[in-house]
Amino acid sequence: MRFSLTPKETSFYDMFAAAAENLVVGSKLLLELLGSDVSGRAEIVERMRAAEHAGDDTTHAVFHQLNSSFITPFDREDIYSLASSLDDIMDFMEEAVDLVVLYDIQTLPKGVEQQIEVLARAAELTAEAMPHLRTMKNLTEYWIEVNRLENQADQIHRKLLAHLFSGQYEAIEVLKLKQVVDVLEEAADAFEHVANTVETIAVKES
Amino acid sequence: MRFSLTPKETSFYDMFAAAAENLVVGSKLLLELLGSDVSGRAEIVERMRAAEHAGDDTTHAVFHQLNSSFITPFDREDIYSLASSLDDIMDFMEEAVDLVVLYDIQTLPKGVEQQIEVLARAAELTAEAMPHLRTMKNLTEYWIEVNRLENQADQIHRKLLAHLFSGQYEAIEVLKLKQVVDVLEEAADAFEHVANTVETIAVKES
Amino acid sequence: MRFSLTPKETSFYDMFAAAAENLVVGSKLLLELLGSDVSGRAEIVERMRAAEHAGDDTTHAVFHQLNSSFITPFDREDIYSLASSLDDIMDFMEEAVDLVVLYDIQTLPKGVEQQIEVLARAAELTAEAMPHLRTMKNLTEYWIEVNRLENQADQIHRKLLAHLFSGQYEAIEVLKLKQVVDVLEEAADAFEHVANTVETIAVKES
Repeated sequence: MRFSLTPKETSFYDMFAAAAENLVVGSKLLLELLGSDVSGRAEIVERMRAAEHAGDDTTHAVFHQLNSSFITPFDREDIYSLASSLDDIMDFMEEAVDLVVLYDIQTLPKGVEQQIEVLARAAELTAEAMPHLRTMKNLTEYWIEVNRLENQADQIHRKLLAHLFSGQYEAIEVLKLKQVVDVLEEAADAFEHVANTVETIAVKES
Repeated sequence: MRFSLTPKETSFYDMFAAAAENLVVGSKLLLELLGSDVSGRAEIVERMRAAEHAGDDTTHAVFHQLNSSFITPFDREDIYSLASSLDDIMDFMEEAVDLVVLYDIQTLPKGVEQQIEVLARAAELTAEAMPHLRTMKNLTEYWIEVNRLENQADQIHRKLLAHLFSGQYEAIEVLKLKQVVDVLEEAADAFEHVANTVETIAVKES
Repeated sequence: MRFSLTPKETSFYDMFAAAAENLVVGSKLLLELLGSDVSGRAEIVERMRAAEHAGDDTTHAVFHQLNSSFITPFDREDIYSLASSLDDIMDFMEEAVDLVVLYDIQTLPKGVEQQIEVLARAAELTAEAMPHLRTMKNLTEYWIEVNRLENQADQIHRKLLAHLFSGQYEAIEVLKLKQVVDVLEEAADAFEHVANTVETIAVKES
């Protein structure tokens, strides 16, 4: 018979790992969207919706556990913040796909691909980092790299805005595209929030 | 002589009930705005302003009570979150009315009426639910229904966005109307935050 | 030899004072931007970037101290909120300068100067108030005045929006200018958050 002294604490780690893995799925769907013609989009929307629902279930499980646990492995507000930011990222990813389909956007500016590649890299790093919360080891590189990626995302976003307002797009088209690039930038910011919360937890534990 | 063991706790319930009743007033003013011609708008703005000030007073009273109470009926952060979200909804409602008048919008797209009807229903349900915080009974239906309403609001909002970007509006008009429908969507989201906080409180108490 | 019973607590006050002084620097750079021709903007961007980095360092120092201190002079969440709002203001100020340069905006509407003057006044008041956190004296006037300034900023912002949508600007120009005036309004709101947090701390201490 297996025996654990800390069954409840274990599941928080598992839930954070599941939430981060789900973001890898989301970022791959964003990359698929770029390569897909218009006819393939509906199926990508469906799979993104499923990923978002899976993310919601994980977030809800974290909150339920948090509200019904007397002892938690980290401070309650850090668990709350971590789960909320991971959930936000999934919401932003889904919103990006939804907007592209809703506005029937035919072509996305080239920089959007770079935005999504940065998100995919941040998702991978986050998924690799979550299991290290158990031991609090090897996390420094993760948060330095995610902060670096967020700066990179910021530069790409700013170039995209300058491009959108350069005069080659109709105002309505600017409005549509700006919503997409802004929500992808929000996703990059939320990855940084996750990394900052992990750093906060690590400082408290040290 | 009446005697209460928990005079302070009682007033939190009363304040939340007052804040929610105030949102019913706000949502009715939004409905009036739709039926009003341009000449009647100034008076609706005035009454909305009064409702928003009343809401501010209630929020301020909750925070003051919270900061000066040693014992509270629920966790402090949940009281804070509940009061803040109720206050946010009133602010969004007032902002919607203000934008319509500020931009001198002559006609609102049909879907805006549906948005406001959903808000009116959410306000009623919230006002009915607040008194149940005392006993924590009969709240499950409330938060399930408000979550359902938020999904409905989301669908209406998305259809409105597709409509605004369909090509039949001038870009400037799209900008104006989008602000109105976005702020109404934010109000619907904030009703869901209130319901989620109530659920959090209930889980902790159970 | 100087001796302090509360060395850690002292530094929180110093850090909040430094963050607020930095906002005075930021608001002066915004005023300089208005008076500068296009050729002088790059240098203002550089100095704003430096101020924003200095602000980040202070915020990071507050969080690090907060996470590694067992005893804090105020409730942890109020310290967190104060540092975050001060940091937000700097970010909004930098964003305003960045947007003007990024979009190569030649002329700003007259109301923008009024917005920035309000921010400069709020920054001065905040910098004067922070040292009073030690004694909690003479703070009432500060937060009343900042709330008054926020109302004033709100009025200026609304007039600017009505002006932008009055029909004299192209849609693309409206989009660019609206981002600038909105981010300056967010800065004014964040000054009010700082004042509200100070009030919260004062109520708890009284």
